[in-house]
Amino acid sequence: MTSKGSRLDPWVDSYATRARGMTASEIRALFSVASRPEVVSLAGGMPFVQALPMDAIAEMSARLIRERGPQALQYGSGQGDPTLREQIVEVMREVGIDGHPDEVVVTPGSQMALDVVVRIFCDPGDVVLVEAPSYVGALGVFRAYECDVIHVAMDNEGLVPNALEETIAAVRASGRKIKLIYTIPSFHNPAGVTQGPQRRSEILAIAQRSGILILEDDPYGLLGFDGGPPPRAIRADEADGVVYLGSFSKTIASGIRVGWALAPHGVREKLVLASESAILCPSNLTQFTVSEYLSTQPWRQQIKVFQEVYRERRDALLDALATYMPEGTTWTVPAGGFYSWLTLPPGLDSKAMLPRAIAALVAYVPGTGFYVDGQGQRELRLSYCYPDPERIREGVRRLGTVMESELQLMQTFGADMPQHDSQGPQTPAPDLG
Amino acid sequence: MTSKGSRLDPWVDSYATRARGMTASEIRALFSVASRPEVVSLAGGMPFVQALPMDAIAEMSARLIRERGPQALQYGSGQGDPTLREQIVEVMREVGIDGHPDEVVVTPGSQMALDVVVRIFCDPGDVVLVEAPSYVGALGVFRAYECDVIHVAMDNEGLVPNALEETIAAVRASGRKIKLIYTIPSFHNPAGVTQGPQRRSEILAIAQRSGILILEDDPYGLLGFDGGPPPRAIRADEADGVVYLGSFSKTIASGIRVGWALAPHGVREKLVLASESAILCPSNLTQFTVSEYLSTQPWRQQIKVFQEVYRERRDALLDALATYMPEGTTWTVPAGGFYSWLTLPPGLDSKAMLPRAIAALVAYVPGTGFYVDGQGQRELRLSYCYPDPERIREGVRRLGTVMESELQLMQTFGADMPQHDSQGPQTPAPDLG
Repeated sequence: MTSKGSRLDPWVDSYATRARGMTASEIRALFSVASRPEVVSLAGGMPFVQALPMDAIAEMSARLIRERGPQALQYGSGQGDPTLREQIVEVMREVGIDGHPDEVVVTPGSQMALDVVVRIFCDPGDVVLVEAPSYVGALGVFRAYECDVIHVAMDNEGLVPNALEETIAAVRASGRKIKLIYTIPSFHNPAGVTQGPQRRSEILAIAQRSGILILEDDPYGLLGFDGGPPPRAIRADEADGVVYLGSFSKTIASGIRVGWALAPHGVREKLVLASESAILCPSNLTQFTVSEYLSTQPWRQQIKVFQEVYRERRDALLDALATYMPEGTTWTVPAGGFYSWLTLPPGLDSKAMLPRAIAALVAYVPGTGFYVDGQGQRELRLSYCYPDPERIREGVRRLGTVMESELQLMQTFGADMPQHDSQGPQTPAPDLG
Repeated sequence: MTSKGSRLDPWVDSYATRARGMTASEIRALFSVASRPEVVSLAGGMPFVQALPMDAIAEMSARLIRERGPQALQYGSGQGDPTLREQIVEVMREVGIDGHPDEVVVTPGSQMALDVVVRIFCDPGDVVLVEAPSYVGALGVFRAYECDVIHVAMDNEGLVPNALEETIAAVRASGRKIKLIYTIPSFHNPAGVTQGPQRRSEILAIAQRSGILILEDDPYGLLGFDGGPPPRAIRADEADGVVYLGSFSKTIASGIRVGWALAPHGVREKLVLASESAILCPSNLTQFTVSEYLSTQPWRQQIKVFQEVYRERRDALLDALATYMPEGTTWTVPAGGFYSWLTLPPGLDSKAMLPRAIAALVAYVPGTGFYVDGQGQRELRLSYCYPDPERIREGVRRLGTVMESELQLMQTFGADMPQHDSQGPQTPAPDLG
C-alpha cells in the first residue's frame, strides 16, 4: 500500500461520490442490543413466516429438485421465468391489474426492482417526490443514486393531492426535473394509512397532467383486514404512466427474495438490461419455489391466514395503545399491513428516548429515519407483524412507562430540559422492512 | 400521458444518462435462434449442473425447510449468513486465501458483488483497467456506471505487466483517475489463459506501487485440469489491496445465485451498505441451501467430478480444432475453466460470419463483445462447458466448414470482398456467463 488516505481505510479517497453518504446509521448499534430475546421488538418488519405450511413446502422443495433439478439449478432468463411471470399476472388481478407476462421483470426482492427503476431514471440531482414519511429502504435507494428527495404531506388517507400539485409547481418553478412520484397507496410503511379510490384517481390525474411517472410500491396490498376485496392499484387504471412493484415477501415468505416490477414496454426493456447488468438473472431455484408454491399450495387461503394473524396483532396494538399511552399521544389506525405511526406528546423526542426504551426492553424505529430532512422527531413507527398479541401488549405497556417518566422529568425541570426538536437532519435508520 | 417523447416509449426523454447506452445487443436476436436444440451452442457459459447429485440435494432441501424453515424463509443479515461466511472462508483456503468471515459479503451471484464494488468506487469518467479481451458481464457493469474502460494487452500468460505499467503511466499523464484493475487471473473468460505465480506477483507489485485497487474475479479458480492444487489467488498475498470475488455458480450450481466479495475492512463496510440499499439482504433460502450442501455433501469430490467433465470436453474441443480448423487459425489452450479464445485467419470477421454459422447449426460469441473499443473482429469465444464431447466435435466440424467456405469466397473475389475489419466499435454481446 502507498500511504494515501487514513490508516483505518487506505481507500478512503478512492470512493465514488455516491458512496460518501454511505455510513452506518447511529441507531444500528442500538438495534443489535434490541435483538436480544427479552426485548419486545416493535421495530422490525419481519413477516410471521411461522404461519406457513412448512411440511408442504419441504415436500414441494424436494420434488422440485427431483423433477426439474437441472433447470432449477441452472442460469435462467434475465427477465425472469416465463411461467412465474404468468402467475404474477394472475396474482396482480387481485388488485385489479390486467397485466401481461411480457411486462413483468422478476428481481431478487422488490427492493432490487426499486433499485433498477431508479437506476434507469435518475441522474444525480433529479427530484423524486415521496410521502412524508416514506419507506426507509426507498430513501436509501434514492440517496444511493444521489436523487433530490422532496416530501409531500400525508393525511389519514395518505398522500394529499393538493400538496402534491403545489410541490410539483414549486419544484418546476425552481427549474428542477421531477422524475418519479414514489407512493405506497395501501397500508403504508411506515404511516399505516391507505389511499381511498377517489384519492388514487386524483393522484393519478395529477401525475398524468404533469407527465410524471408514478412508482407504486405495493408489498402489503393483499394484507387488508376488512375482509373485502383488496384496494384497487393505481396501476389498474393506467398502464403507461405507472411502474408497479410487487413482492412475495409478505404474502409468501421474505427469505425467498422474489419480487417484481410491472412496467410499460419501453421501460420494461431498459429494466431487463439494467437488471441483467446487475445480477445476470434472478435465481431459478427461488423463482421455481414460488412458482411451485403458487401452483400447488392454496395461496389465497394462506393469505387469509396471514390477514387473520396480523389483524389480531393490530387489534392488540390498538387496545394496548388506548390503555397505556399518555395523553397527547396520537397514532394511525391501519386497515391492513404491518405498521402504526405514532406521534408523541409535545416535548418528547423519539430518537433521544430510544436508549431508555431499549433499557426498558422495548424497541421501535424513531421517526427521523423515514424523512430526509430532519422531520419526525416526535414520531415513531410501531410494527405489530412479528410479536404475538401478549408480547405486543407488554411492549406497549413498557413504552408507556418510559414515556410517562420522560413526561414527568419534563414537568419537573420544565424549560431546562434539552430541546431535541431543534436538532438537524438525522442519518436514516437501517432498512428494517 | 402528455405528448412528450416518441410514440413507442413515452418516457424516452426521462431516462438517466447511464440508461442511454442500455440497448439490446444486435446479436441477441441471433441467439434466440441459436437456442434451438439442433444448434450446437459453443456460445453460452452454462455449467453442466446435470453432474450434481440431484437426489441428495432434493433430500437436503426438504430437511432444510423442515428443520430450519422459519429462519430459511425469513429476512436475514445484509452481509450474509454468518455460518455460510465461515464456510466461504474455508472454500477460499483452496486458493491460498487466509480470510476472515467478517470480511466476506454474500450477494445473489458474484455479478452483484461486482456491481456493488463498482457502485462504491466509480464516478462517471473514472478509469477501469481491464484485460484485452475481458468478461462481457463486467464490461456491462462498468458501462452502467459510466466508467472509462481501457484495455491492457494479454499474452498466453494473461495480463502483461509491462503493458499494465505503461497504461497506468499514460492514463495518469492524461490527468485521469484510475480506480480499479479488473482481472481474471485463473482460466480467463473469454481468453482461456492463466497467470503464472511470477506474473501474479508482478501485477500485484505494480498495483501496490501505483496505489490502485485490484478487483480479482475468480469464478473458475477451482476448475483446473492438471490435478495439482488450484492457482494461488492474488489476494492470498495481499489483504489490503485486493477485493476478491468468488462464486458458487461453477463449483455448485449457477441457478442458486450465491456469490461473494472478500474485501478489506473499510471497503467491506461500504459494500454491505451498498448491497443492503440494493437488495436489503441476500436470500436465506439460497444461502442455507449452499451452506447445507457444503456441510453435508462431499463438495471437494464433486468439484473433481466437474473438473473431469470439463477436462474431457476441453480435450474434445482441442482435438476437433486441430482436425477441422483451416490454416491460419489459432486458439488458446485452457488449463481449466470453460473457454478457448480463437483467432480467425486474416480477412475473416467473427460477427459477420455468425449468421452463416448459425445457419450451419453452430453458435459462438463474436470477439467484439469482449472489448469496448471495436477490437476483436477476427476473434471469437468457444465454450466447451455444456455440450457433450460428441456435440463439441460436431460443432467444431460445422464451424470449420463455414470458415472454409468463407475463405474460398475470399480467394475467389479477392480484394472485392467487403472488409469487415474497418468497422467501428460494436455493441457488446449479452451476458452469456
